[in-house]
Amino acid sequence: MTKTIRISLDAMGGDHGPSVVVPGAALALERHPGMRFVMHGDEAVVRPILDAHPKLREATELRHAAVSVKMDDKPSQALRVGRYKSSMWLALQAVRDGDAQVCVSAGNTGALMAMSMFCLKTMPQVDRPAIAAIWPTTRGESIVLDVGASIGADASHYVNLAVLGAAMARIVFDLDRPLVGLLNVGREEIKGIEAVKEASRMLREANFPHLTYHGFVEGDDIGKGTVDVVVTEGFTGNIALKTAEGTAKQLGEYLRGAMSRTLMAKIGYLFAKSAFDALRAKMDPSRANGGVFLGLEGVVIKSHGGADAKGVASAIDIAYDMAHFDLMRTIRDMLEESPAVPPA
Amino acid sequence: MTKTIRISLDAMGGDHGPSVVVPGAALALERHPGMRFVMHGDEAVVRPILDAHPKLREATELRHAAVSVKMDDKPSQALRVGRYKSSMWLALQAVRDGDAQVCVSAGNTGALMAMSMFCLKTMPQVDRPAIAAIWPTTRGESIVLDVGASIGADASHYVNLAVLGAAMARIVFDLDRPLVGLLNVGREEIKGIEAVKEASRMLREANFPHLTYHGFVEGDDIGKGTVDVVVTEGFTGNIALKTAEGTAKQLGEYLRGAMSRTLMAKIGYLFAKSAFDALRAKMDPSRANGGVFLGLEGVVIKSHGGADAKGVASAIDIAYDMAHFDLMRTIRDMLEESPAVPPA
Repeated sequence: MTKTIRISLDAMGGDHGPSVVVPGAALALERHPGMRFVMHGDEAVVRPILDAHPKLREATELRHAAVSVKMDDKPSQALRVGRYKSSMWLALQAVRDGDAQVCVSAGNTGALMAMSMFCLKTMPQVDRPAIAAIWPTTRGESIVLDVGASIGADASHYVNLAVLGAAMARIVFDLDRPLVGLLNVGREEIKGIEAVKEASRMLREANFPHLTYHGFVEGDDIGKGTVDVVVTEGFTGNIALKTAEGTAKQLGEYLRGAMSRTLMAKIGYLFAKSAFDALRAKMDPSRANGGVFLGLEGVVIKSHGGADAKGVASAIDIAYDMAHFDLMRTIRDMLEESPAVPPA
Repeated sequence: MTKTIRISLDAMGGDHGPSVVVPGAALALERHPGMRFVMHGDEAVVRPILDAHPKLREATELRHAAVSVKMDDKPSQALRVGRYKSSMWLALQAVRDGDAQVCVSAGNTGALMAMSMFCLKTMPQVDRPAIAAIWPTTRGESIVLDVGASIGADASHYVNLAVLGAAMARIVFDLDRPLVGLLNVGREEIKGIEAVKEASRMLREANFPHLTYHGFVEGDDIGKGTVDVVVTEGFTGNIALKTAEGTAKQLGEYLRGAMSRTLMAKIGYLFAKSAFDALRAKMDPSRANGGVFLGLEGVVIKSHGGADAKGVASAIDIAYDMAHFDLMRTIRDMLEESPAVPPA
């Protein structure tokens, strides 16, 4: 028995809109030929691009949306203008109505989260949804959450984040018991914020069947890949993520500068070019693309606004896995084992 | 009129103790021949190393300390064992008693901060001391504080941190009006933690004569060098610092891997070796060494525990500048202009 995976796409999202979203979907379809799309956008713009990809056209139902949310719209603005009729809203609604299992949008994060909360609603066992990032490490990849959906957290919220992140890690990394760490300023139990310490006690005592609690991790453990899932609240997580992005960019500039300074270095660069290309691919943000909104009544993948078709295809790949291995079911099962929420 | 700069050294601090601290002091003395040292440590160990550096020996008063604080001592342990008699305590006491203007130790951070608070005391206008890091950026260097002295902050504490960091930037970067930013999850005034937003209003209204308030900055602004001083509380600051360190290490490993994978890449490396050496120097943590404790009744420089003699010398250079340009006076003057503290 194979179920058909149906992905709902906001064709108008991102800096480049349908000119990268449609080719990105075509790329993803090559890898998962059984996949089907419900695509939302301005028909006059999207149809011609879709017609240029006959296989994708066969696999896609295009639905017209009169409005597109802009990349710089504030969440409140986006809701006012785009509720019920924007490509973003309709893409979410298709998930709510069961026309698709997961929604992918490269639209602006704040607007997408606000619309997701309105359209899909937050799960009853979860206080606030979170954004999970897939973070490249020296050992492979880890999941870091929350990277900016909500500010501040009590102990229960940290435990919820641990459950949501572990459920995602089980699917994305194909692990039975992902290793989960709480981000803190030291590894000793006496250090850090009170809520983090309390969450640590709760996670240790909970003895989840599908999650191994590692204890505290520090900022440098993220890049090392010490754990599969790094849990923190949205303020710290967002700053950690952007600091790492900034550091990677900075070192890239140092490297570029060093490689162009002398003739010998330039010659060296020519010899080592394929190595540099491999390095650039590793540092490429479009590779591990796609923030995942967790804790909603439906799965939403936020693709990077500046991503190219390859980046969009990566986000759709993740969406495919989430639907194929039923992330929602996994989350619900794990929440039932959690001490952070009273049984419904 | 030139005043003599006297530096108090904890010779036993750090992973390598006097075997790097003493040569580090010798290096720094070459750059500032007028400097004098009060050195604290186990005389039997330190004296022979000092004797190997005749110029330094001439410039140094060695004081025997019976106890050394260990790198893994908890602050409470260090205080119990080391108060009044450890090299760390005596190095601080020399500043308190006016025998030196500034203390340098590579000992463990928690112990050094605890002893500093006991021995030197916190300034009456400051609620809690902070640790400031000098952060390499693509534009040069910035100051980031607090990177771990205290957890959590109200609006007044953020304003204090801005003042302390700006005072340090005026001296270290020789600026009349350093540009100060508050670390947040977005640049708009509506985003972030309440205390950060309130601090932003206070800094905007204060109109400091020796500080330009830039507004909010995000994680990736640190590496860009958008502002001279980045203000955040110790939890987020510590995680940002360690995340950046982890990312730099991770990219270094990627680079090493890429350079050794193929013969062409290895040949390329040989051609570009001097460029790589320059790159390594830029990424070298011992270069921008030295966390600075601010808000105490005296200046304390924490040198990196793993630093070599060059790293210790960098920390002593910073200490020299702090004393020469009178950081304590600058801080006191700026605190008097601050809205965060009631006039004494």
